[in-house]
Amino acid sequence: MSETRPIDVERVRGGDRRADTDRVAIEEPLEIRLHGRPFAVIMRTPGADRELAAGFLHAERVVMSADDLGAIERCTEPGVENIVDVTLADGSSERLERLLADRRLTGVSSSCGLCGRQTIESLLTNVEPLRAEWTIDAATLADLPDRLRARQVAFDETGGLHAAGLFTPDGTLVDVAEDVGRHNAVDKIVGRMLMREALPLSNCLLCVSGRTSYEIVQKAIFAGIPIVAAVSAPSSLAIDLARDSGVTLVGFARAGTFNIYAHGERIDG
Amino acid sequence: MSETRPIDVERVRGGDRRADTDRVAIEEPLEIRLHGRPFAVIMRTPGADRELAAGFLHAERVVMSADDLGAIERCTEPGVENIVDVTLADGSSERLERLLADRRLTGVSSSCGLCGRQTIESLLTNVEPLRAEWTIDAATLADLPDRLRARQVAFDETGGLHAAGLFTPDGTLVDVAEDVGRHNAVDKIVGRMLMREALPLSNCLLCVSGRTSYEIVQKAIFAGIPIVAAVSAPSSLAIDLARDSGVTLVGFARAGTFNIYAHGERIDG
Repeated sequence: MSETRPIDVERVRGGDRRADTDRVAIEEPLEIRLHGRPFAVIMRTPGADRELAAGFLHAERVVMSADDLGAIERCTEPGVENIVDVTLADGSSERLERLLADRRLTGVSSSCGLCGRQTIESLLTNVEPLRAEWTIDAATLADLPDRLRARQVAFDETGGLHAAGLFTPDGTLVDVAEDVGRHNAVDKIVGRMLMREALPLSNCLLCVSGRTSYEIVQKAIFAGIPIVAAVSAPSSLAIDLARDSGVTLVGFARAGTFNIYAHGERIDG
Repeated sequence: MSETRPIDVERVRGGDRRADTDRVAIEEPLEIRLHGRPFAVIMRTPGADRELAAGFLHAERVVMSADDLGAIERCTEPGVENIVDVTLADGSSERLERLLADRRLTGVSSSCGLCGRQTIESLLTNVEPLRAEWTIDAATLADLPDRLRARQVAFDETGGLHAAGLFTPDGTLVDVAEDVGRHNAVDKIVGRMLMREALPLSNCLLCVSGRTSYEIVQKAIFAGIPIVAAVSAPSSLAIDLARDSGVTLVGFARAGTFNIYAHGERIDG
């Protein structure tokens, strides 16, 4: 099971733009089952799935020691992947019902193979692909991380905060939010615009200070934002989702250079 | 409401070690209620709490537009903070029951003030403070991020993966894990050791490639790991928890220098 995979990318360096191949970290959902019943779905990089399930259940205080573990097995049914089934030493039906009742169940069908592809398909059945017609100048886009950074007041003080910024196509900053959580910074911006009745944000671009996961692209889609630019790397699933949903996805936007991972047609130059 | 706060720190630069003051990003839990009933608890940096609640509920598809929102109010009862109550335009009891049943409820008492202090106190009633007697040499500790980095195979390829490494007091790498999720990398290591019946990890040190949140320190405590070193910044709640639970917490460990945020007595030199 590989942790990375090759991907087609366009590299933009000043006025130069050329096709290349990059490698990206794989992000895929893992369903953790207790005695065959869905308990949690977490986004993770494949590899050490049984160990991840054991550690996750340890952190959730479902198992406290190796003695609490019966078996941890990967599901081996044909077409079924990314599922680990955990049997507890104390798997009384009373305890199982209590554990499952305490968990948020994310509506994953127990018959589905649960791979990134299916995750995307189930999401896209409920949203319209983004079809914003506007474009942004490559030089303007390359400048956004510096503009965002200039507004990161709390980061300057602590080095410990993620930022998200909302920009217009000409590079004007509309709003910025900082948070210890990457997702929270995006939620703060989308929430503010929602409260102002400004959704969908079809004429805006989202710039984030860190990496881009599936969830960040998903939040952009829900908010109707057609371009997402990040200072760091995207995950495989973020790229797949962006490509399928019509979102322009840019990564490694630093010092006037960036990589285009999806829908480069919205970037001029 | 401030996003940062001052904190006492020891700065270690080669053979030099001196007390100083630093600023850290504030991390606190926020409880989001629907019609007065607990819906979710998320760790966040205070500020724009109503906007965060709106954006979170938008990403969760509880509200799709401003029309779905009735009111978003901060709880103003004396002694109650970090709680936002959301009233939905369609708040029929049938819909509310369904939304609440779908959510994981994290056992937060509705009568508690829900602040970081209480979060720590409720955690620490269930765990023993760590009392590992061993110490680590400052020079050995300063070298660990480079040793971890040398083993980050997938990061070198992608720039997109977090890593966690488990080390012995003499700086020997015991295990390493990479993942798109910071927490997953730690869970993979703890899970592997749990499956080997090697918990508690009282004689080990955890080194993480990114920032340190409350949850990372909590996972270390559960696994019995007395020293946590991170390449980036800790949050306020990570520091508070480390100080109260006997965990040595180091941040900004880079190029032979680091800051000590908690229990420096385990670091020699």
